[in-house]
Amino acid sequence: MPLGERGGWESSESMYCGVETDFSDDVPSLLSFHISTGGFDYVLAPLVCFFHYYYFPLDSSLSLTSLFALRLQMNPSYRPSLVEANGSSDTQALPVSGSDLVLAPSQWSSHVVGKVSSWIDLDSEDEVLRMDSETTLKQEIAWATHLSLQACLLPTPKGTSCANYARCVNQILQGLGNLQLWLRVPLVKSDGDSMDATSEGLNDSWELWNSFRLLCEHDSKLSVALDVMSNLPSESSLGRWMGESVRAAIISTDSFLTNARGYPCLSKRHQKLIAGFFDHAVQVVVSGKLVHNLQRASDSNAEGTQRHPLRSYLDYVAYLFQKMEPLPEQERIELGYRDFLQAPLQPLMDNLEAQTYETFERDSIKYIQYQRAVAKALVDRVPDEKASELTTVLMVVGAGRGPLVRASLQAAEETDRKLKVYAVEKNPNAVVTLHNLVKMEGWEDMVTIISCDMRFWTAPEKADILVSELLGSFGDNELSPECLDGAQRFLKPDGISIPSSYTSFIQPVTASKLYNDVKAHKDLAHFETPYVVKLHSVARLAPSQPVFTFAHPNFSTKANNQRYKKLRFNLPSDAGSALVHGFAGYFDSVLYKDVHLGIEPTTETPNMFSWFPIFFPLRKPVEVHPNFPLEVHFWRCCGSTKVWYEWSVSSPAPSPMHNTNGRSYWVGL
Amino acid sequence: MPLGERGGWESSESMYCGVETDFSDDVPSLLSFHISTGGFDYVLAPLVCFFHYYYFPLDSSLSLTSLFALRLQMNPSYRPSLVEANGSSDTQALPVSGSDLVLAPSQWSSHVVGKVSSWIDLDSEDEVLRMDSETTLKQEIAWATHLSLQACLLPTPKGTSCANYARCVNQILQGLGNLQLWLRVPLVKSDGDSMDATSEGLNDSWELWNSFRLLCEHDSKLSVALDVMSNLPSESSLGRWMGESVRAAIISTDSFLTNARGYPCLSKRHQKLIAGFFDHAVQVVVSGKLVHNLQRASDSNAEGTQRHPLRSYLDYVAYLFQKMEPLPEQERIELGYRDFLQAPLQPLMDNLEAQTYETFERDSIKYIQYQRAVAKALVDRVPDEKASELTTVLMVVGAGRGPLVRASLQAAEETDRKLKVYAVEKNPNAVVTLHNLVKMEGWEDMVTIISCDMRFWTAPEKADILVSELLGSFGDNELSPECLDGAQRFLKPDGISIPSSYTSFIQPVTASKLYNDVKAHKDLAHFETPYVVKLHSVARLAPSQPVFTFAHPNFSTKANNQRYKKLRFNLPSDAGSALVHGFAGYFDSVLYKDVHLGIEPTTETPNMFSWFPIFFPLRKPVEVHPNFPLEVHFWRCCGSTKVWYEWSVSSPAPSPMHNTNGRSYWVGL
Repeated sequence: MPLGERGGWESSESMYCGVETDFSDDVPSLLSFHISTGGFDYVLAPLVCFFHYYYFPLDSSLSLTSLFALRLQMNPSYRPSLVEANGSSDTQALPVSGSDLVLAPSQWSSHVVGKVSSWIDLDSEDEVLRMDSETTLKQEIAWATHLSLQACLLPTPKGTSCANYARCVNQILQGLGNLQLWLRVPLVKSDGDSMDATSEGLNDSWELWNSFRLLCEHDSKLSVALDVMSNLPSESSLGRWMGESVRAAIISTDSFLTNARGYPCLSKRHQKLIAGFFDHAVQVVVSGKLVHNLQRASDSNAEGTQRHPLRSYLDYVAYLFQKMEPLPEQERIELGYRDFLQAPLQPLMDNLEAQTYETFERDSIKYIQYQRAVAKALVDRVPDEKASELTTVLMVVGAGRGPLVRASLQAAEETDRKLKVYAVEKNPNAVVTLHNLVKMEGWEDMVTIISCDMRFWTAPEKADILVSELLGSFGDNELSPECLDGAQRFLKPDGISIPSSYTSFIQPVTASKLYNDVKAHKDLAHFETPYVVKLHSVARLAPSQPVFTFAHPNFSTKANNQRYKKLRFNLPSDAGSALVHGFAGYFDSVLYKDVHLGIEPTTETPNMFSWFPIFFPLRKPVEVHPNFPLEVHFWRCCGSTKVWYEWSVSSPAPSPMHNTNGRSYWVGL
Repeated sequence: MPLGERGGWESSESMYCGVETDFSDDVPSLLSFHISTGGFDYVLAPLVCFFHYYYFPLDSSLSLTSLFALRLQMNPSYRPSLVEANGSSDTQALPVSGSDLVLAPSQWSSHVVGKVSSWIDLDSEDEVLRMDSETTLKQEIAWATHLSLQACLLPTPKGTSCANYARCVNQILQGLGNLQLWLRVPLVKSDGDSMDATSEGLNDSWELWNSFRLLCEHDSKLSVALDVMSNLPSESSLGRWMGESVRAAIISTDSFLTNARGYPCLSKRHQKLIAGFFDHAVQVVVSGKLVHNLQRASDSNAEGTQRHPLRSYLDYVAYLFQKMEPLPEQERIELGYRDFLQAPLQPLMDNLEAQTYETFERDSIKYIQYQRAVAKALVDRVPDEKASELTTVLMVVGAGRGPLVRASLQAAEETDRKLKVYAVEKNPNAVVTLHNLVKMEGWEDMVTIISCDMRFWTAPEKADILVSELLGSFGDNELSPECLDGAQRFLKPDGISIPSSYTSFIQPVTASKLYNDVKAHKDLAHFETPYVVKLHSVARLAPSQPVFTFAHPNFSTKANNQRYKKLRFNLPSDAGSALVHGFAGYFDSVLYKDVHLGIEPTTETPNMFSWFPIFFPLRKPVEVHPNFPLEVHFWRCCGSTKVWYEWSVSSPAPSPMHNTNGRSYWVGL
């Protein structure tokens, strides 16, 4: 039974809640108790409940019945070599069949997550324990695969070293079908600095996870299950996990507080964290014993039936989910785009399709901003006393199907200024729609349509105002600078360009899903391409910083559109280390004076949906730390037929140059 | 004219010496002076000597004559934008043709290395200087390519930051034909620790080189030219460069001392360094002005003709080369194998060829050691008083064409013991030779030949001594453990195995040539394969450490041949940072008691040539530093049909696991 609905809205993603259980040799009863009685969606139970290998002499005359009896006596902390040491050396492993039949296949996959024996220690100094651990791990995962479980929980590495554990898991991952592996990691980070080369011991569990996944080469079937403790580390340290592949949050009953009525509840910080997990599709698992005794007596009295001891914890988790704010409508529309990589548009080389125009034209906030900007420019250009005699010449370059023509005419009407509009558009398909619009609206006297590329048009007169919307998610990435350089030939020397300037921004992000999606292509080109993407499962590691700025018009003879920017990002001092998978990119544009438009998170124009951010990946993720700032370089390079970006990291460790000579990604002129 | 011959031997690699020159507009005279008069092999001269772009108004009426006059007035520190700023904005670049005709094509390529203008600064804060620098760099390299030069010298980056310089060079490298680029770097390292995050400034020039080449992704056309100063950094810091791609050592006349006769000479440490450079095919270039005045007057008096002012420096460099020790004969034979990657043998799966047997059999030292070991074992086994009555049963497993049979019989003769030999060999081709050998030597009474795989042979009696030579460069890598496990079935419980144990060793190395050769294959498999290689251009960064040990016989029922070893390597504290491209591997074997055999550098058996070291590459080189030890993991994994190694680095930063499940490399059983 899912956790109900979030804020009363119909949600596309239901959330489920599991419960961690101890060893049991009666699996049907285990499920019945926790799922039917308890209301949990699944159990997180030791794999030894479902499966026992054991060793017996080859010449043994044990019957199947006695085998079964032996199985029942099996200790969950059973170790292969302990059995062998007590018996004959001439033994052989034999799986006990039968236990896969106690549940239907669909029950196994929907209601059970298997726990690998927690005693295993593949990095022990004790070689026998190490070998037993490897045998057990491989056997248990093999059985989980046989049962078609969806996921298995791997116990937390015992020390700070995990190389042998990771080697063995990595071997397993190569041949794994659909089974997901969740590495259990406590959510801890001490305030001390972990970069001290002489210190030992775990003070930031993120580092353990990071080592493990780097050794396993970012395998997408390996995720994290976080043990949420009663003490939480700093906000910025928690933030890192939102860009990681976290599948489950295991909350111990010890971490719950008690409310006035004696019921379990969570601290404000815990509530905020859990809400963040819900938002990132992280499953919650309740673990531990009943520690809130008050409600137990009253509940069983009230209902007269046996009540699951952890039911009140589940109810509280469900309550947290249901009281979440409903998603805004635009967010719901865009759910399917979350963390989905798209190639950026190339509107200069390719003509846009009607569907694309349709989408952009619905973005009313954008055109309201343009109308405000044009209105201010008209008033600045023509004083009130001359409003009836002077006609302002306004050219819309890249008019598309006419939304900026409409916004400009409305601005003229609003300010009572006389306007003559040239609508320049290179896409002949859009020009057809534009002609129809002008006819239907009766704008023939005011609007002249020019079917031409603005870079090559010979204008009959010069313009007072040049209006364009040529910006991409990264500002200049759809070649607005090159287009407007061409168009400013027919702008008066004191004319106004709307937009008058625009700036791109980047910030380093942890984005393991995006990284894995890029990596799945198994080639260099996809690592050297920026993507348009609705960023969601992303940790923003530092505030964004400006990269390239272009201002229009620019009549300087020395002007050029090549750019180079070096940026240095500092992580908050209490954040701990983090992995940078790439850079989120945005733009902000000054349309005219105080009227701006943009998607940079701290200044973004609300309710505008024409642009998702851009994502520049790194070929190899870079580990950063508050003591070792990240130094990044971005170049905008211009050739005779194309424009491209190159980027690299020089500190804390140099990366290779990305997209040299635009070999993987470029925008055609 | 090469530097003469090394130690009187005919050497396969001649060494040349160049001279660094200033600007000159008369190239033929420049060459005539330095090469014909001076005796140098080539000049390292500014590319502006050979080529001048300059800007002139398009509507200019300048004739070709006046263009030429302009060129002669050209200042070597000429900058494009300075010219433009003084003239019209409507200008265009035009190369002055003609200068490529002053020399024959072969002269350009054999006698000229071009120097890129040293004023360029692509990482300047001054944008105009940056842009001018990029233009100049690209123009000069383009002209050098046109002239078919073999190499160009890039000036030292001006600050500690070099990202924009590297970005531009990396763009150039993509389209470069045969031209090599040498980055000029001063050979400096201060004693201070460069890992202090707050410190700025260059205190270890290796780090500058490392950043530059990482940003250029280890491009094999990018090398180093080291400026050798009068003060040299520590020995271990110098050692790092022997594994780097160093092409030239530029020695300033200021770095020379003066001997008793007033002639230039070098300090002992400089001499040792230069000898190391000669040994690694690093060209020497003399640079600077004559600073040893004494000999000038006397020389010109003596010969009556003009003598080149730097001739005495060249003479001294030639003297250093000629006084080098001649290469030992075995080294000369192996010259062609230096740094050449070979796949390891698989003698268990594949039968060796006659040529291979031939080579190994010539390694007399090896069989002398075996004979010593067998002799000691025979004496231990049979006391003198029983020498005439007891016959020792000795089995040679993997007898090949018989060298161990011969060594064993000689040991018996030497110790006056009675011997019965079984020669077991699975290769039927070798068995034919073996039969002929026994017949020719008249050993029929003593030697029984068994044509069989030792793992499956049913022996008619048990052996006192089992002799084998199944070791690979990494000890167990040719499956000696698995073979001897099978063969020990027919060894008496108190029998002796020769070898009685063997241990593999590894050490981290800088090996940029090997890394680039592996990388050239552009696939994962080659990065996950160990290679047999005669290591030469390699910097050994720390003493080797033992990895896996196997002892024979081993009758324990719990024995198995899987192994796991974690190793920690510390760099010398004064070494500075270094890049680890992989691990050099060796073995040492105890044949019997104090008789050993091995290739581990500190204990290697002299004059033995059957084994080159092994090299385990890293997919991505790891930077290490004395404060951050290198932690490495090696596994020997065993499946039912194959054995393989996996390896990874966990510190200072985790690498991915190499060769998981033996996916890229394995040895068949």
